[in-house]
Amino acid sequence: MTSLRWLARVFVTPKDGILDPQGRAVQQSLHALGYPEVGEVRLGKYLEVRLADVSRDSAEARVREMCERLLANRVIEDFRFELEEMTSS
Amino acid sequence: MTSLRWLARVFVTPKDGILDPQGRAVQQSLHALGYPEVGEVRLGKYLEVRLADVSRDSAEARVREMCERLLANRVIEDFRFELEEMTSS
Repeated sequence: MTSLRWLARVFVTPKDGILDPQGRAVQQSLHALGYPEVGEVRLGKYLEVRLADVSRDSAEARVREMCERLLANRVIEDFRFELEEMTSS
Repeated sequence: MTSLRWLARVFVTPKDGILDPQGRAVQQSLHALGYPEVGEVRLGKYLEVRLADVSRDSAEARVREMCERLLANRVIEDFRFELEEMTSS
């Protein structure tokens, strides 16, 4: 592989309106620990994906495709990502 | 509960140097799907926690405490968070 250039930060979250039992469990645990100020909690995934030296347009298109094909389940999850150029490989 | 005011975006990631088998599995799946440009993948958690109307200092201190006590496993995970004021409850 050529040297790495991009860091994609990918956020995968349950879609609005989709039941999030893990988030609900975290909320209940926080209440039990003494944090009554906590309202809704949503639990998702956060991925850091490092990518080789391709153009920004190509990296964006490829990461979007990775999200649609593997990283997010589009039936129940939304995704978004940020692409950051790494200073050194 | 009083009206909600804050949205905390919490990122929990495996510490550097800690083995991340889930991230490795995602990397291998991406290679198998035809993305050879993918280097290291790290898989963490992303939480959105809504909080009642307290001061920013108080919200920050409480969220930090929640991370240390429940949301992150400090032996193997790092955390960081951003606090955003919601425009309406």
